[in-house]
Amino acid sequence: MSSHNLLLLPGDGIGPEVMAEVQKLLKWLSSQGVAKFETETDLVGGAAYDAHKVSITDAAMDRAMKADAVLFGAVGGPKWDNVPYEARPEAGLLRLRKDLALFANLRPAICYPALADASSLKRELVEGLDIVIVRELTGGVYFGEPKEIVTLENGEKRAVDTQVYTTHEIERIARVAFELARKRRNKVTSSEKRNVMKSGVLWNQVVTAVHKAEYPDVQLEHNLADSLAMQLVRQPKQYDVIVTDNLFGDILSDIAAMLTGSLGMLPSASLGAEDPATGKRKALYEPVHGSAPDIAGKGMANPIAMIGSMAMSLRYSFGLLEAADMVEKAIANVLDSGLRTGDIAAKGQNTVSTGEMGDAILTEM
Amino acid sequence: MSSHNLLLLPGDGIGPEVMAEVQKLLKWLSSQGVAKFETETDLVGGAAYDAHKVSITDAAMDRAMKADAVLFGAVGGPKWDNVPYEARPEAGLLRLRKDLALFANLRPAICYPALADASSLKRELVEGLDIVIVRELTGGVYFGEPKEIVTLENGEKRAVDTQVYTTHEIERIARVAFELARKRRNKVTSSEKRNVMKSGVLWNQVVTAVHKAEYPDVQLEHNLADSLAMQLVRQPKQYDVIVTDNLFGDILSDIAAMLTGSLGMLPSASLGAEDPATGKRKALYEPVHGSAPDIAGKGMANPIAMIGSMAMSLRYSFGLLEAADMVEKAIANVLDSGLRTGDIAAKGQNTVSTGEMGDAILTEM
Ligand SMILES: CC(C)[C@H](C(=O)O)[C@@H](O)C(=O)O
Ligand SMILES: CC(C)[C@H](C(=O)O)[C@@H](O)C(=O)O
Repeated sequence: MSSHNLLLLPGDGIGPEVMAEVQKLLKWLSSQGVAKFETETDLVGGAAYDAHKVSITDAAMDRAMKADAVLFGAVGGPKWDNVPYEARPEAGLLRLRKDLALFANLRPAICYPALADASSLKRELVEGLDIVIVRELTGGVYFGEPKEIVTLENGEKRAVDTQVYTTHEIERIARVAFELARKRRNKVTSSEKRNVMKSGVLWNQVVTAVHKAEYPDVQLEHNLADSLAMQLVRQPKQYDVIVTDNLFGDILSDIAAMLTGSLGMLPSASLGAEDPATGKRKALYEPVHGSAPDIAGKGMANPIAMIGSMAMSLRYSFGLLEAADMVEKAIANVLDSGLRTGDIAAKGQNTVSTGEMGDAILTEM
Repeated sequence: MSSHNLLLLPGDGIGPEVMAEVQKLLKWLSSQGVAKFETETDLVGGAAYDAHKVSITDAAMDRAMKADAVLFGAVGGPKWDNVPYEARPEAGLLRLRKDLALFANLRPAICYPALADASSLKRELVEGLDIVIVRELTGGVYFGEPKEIVTLENGEKRAVDTQVYTTHEIERIARVAFELARKRRNKVTSSEKRNVMKSGVLWNQVVTAVHKAEYPDVQLEHNLADSLAMQLVRQPKQYDVIVTDNLFGDILSDIAAMLTGSLGMLPSASLGAEDPATGKRKALYEPVHGSAPDIAGKGMANPIAMIGSMAMSLRYSFGLLEAADMVEKAIANVLDSGLRTGDIAAKGQNTVSTGEMGDAILTEM
């Protein structure tokens, strides 16, 4: 029986509640002999700040480096709006991404037919939607230097952020997108703003070159980021895999998630490069939704995105494809049976708590 | 009778067709004694490249500097995909914005009730939508330096774009937003990514300070750009005036435009600072839609966004409020009477040509 080491970072807001449901499932999977899951738990975000005045400690980073995978809940909330910039809750997440070199962020946007009516879009435009945004996660304007605010001689302030991309950063994320497309509907849409950004020009050139040299069998199209944002709202089903940079990916993946009407349902995976020696890669799995401080601690949160993120870890980190399928099937069945947390309930529909939803998925399995 | 000097830059694709309709209307307004409109026409974008190997000539820039207002059609098309970067069609538009110092881009997103069904969103979410995006237009990553691609020693390329904002750039665009909100529903939503960008931190601080010192009567809220993109798709009517930077404004205003189902209908104004001596400001008016090369030259384009842009020039540049109202009323009446160009026609509805739509609006006036 294979053995896997998971670091759980529940974080803030609803993070701990939804992570608790994942722990139930991991325990059950261990007890069934699917694999041996060893878990450790640590603090991140505001919770880490409250305890240690940093958004993640070096000790927690160390555990993350050693873990086979990290499961991450959510960070942030109004409580920490005024903490020093370097210690803000998001900094913990950004450090994890950067120090673990998790350059590839996969964000599926799937519209569950049972939930299509929860979308703000007309049902026929989103029903059956199944796209993946492949977002570059360790480069671009998130990490480029200089990144600073300076005071000018005239007393004004001047803020600078720097968008930087190099050839190999674009090549490796392009490959992730093309590989994924081959297992899906064989189509990649690459997005940038080459008409105003030099990084967009390079992005476009490199993706085109990788396509020509290594993936001529995959269909490739280019779409400016503003135009893609529009098209996503107009006709999302025309896409399969979308590959884009860190900042555009942030916005476009949130739009895609919102279209599905299933924001509380969507998992994501952030992956590093495969170590050629061991075949292993660093990975962090997190729900697309945030920490939802307004409903935190009330047992109202939807644990499905977090559970789905765990299922992604079974698939991408541990090669436990059958177990991953089982979890995902259980989620779909529970939804088909009509169970709903508040966020996905139609008007007048009965709702269940976070724990009840987790239990139902467990029972289904 | 007041006299006004307009530079018409039809540009590429459907630009010339929709501009022709504006010329009809300007002639009629002159003949009715509303004001004396003198027009000159010049090339921009691909059309300028074909004639002069630049996207706008210095002579045309000179005319733009001297004009009371510029009416701009649209630029670009696959024909110019491979022209040198500095001469690409968009460069002409960017030079106009920068050299005329048009820092404030107003993009109304209005959903005409008669067209609400053309939206991909459910009717009740967009019917009656009336928001304005105030986009900073001469700063940010569009113009910051360095902006370059360099070749590294290892042969890789490295592309850099620089996002820069200074205090006064943010102050003046914030004031435009607050002033506008006072004439509307008194609410401003400011958007940035302060959780990852220093320019977002400064943006947030400066908007907050301007609000406190000068506009405490206006309601102000802050919304991260990714979250705002989601909320726009989910519940757009919660907004009134949205103020944001050049790049986020590019994307968010396109989303807002698409929501209305009336992309071919939406005008925009790009305004400079008021000259304290003359009370005049430089201004450029353009439709939100692009050059639509696929339907260019076929008489299928919808001229309403271009005509609406002209109406905005009557209002913002010439103080001809009644004439502006008259044009806008004529547009609304023609729509109510059921006239449709192809882009806004429901399935099975009869459509009219660009010229017929222009004539109908003229007749209505
Ligand atoms: C929390 C924040 C730093 C983060 C980002 O901007 O990447 C979030 O919006 C996301 O998309 O994961
Ligand atoms: C044509 C292009 C340079 C331009 C921009 O990015 O600003 C366009 O998308 C717009 O929104 O006006």
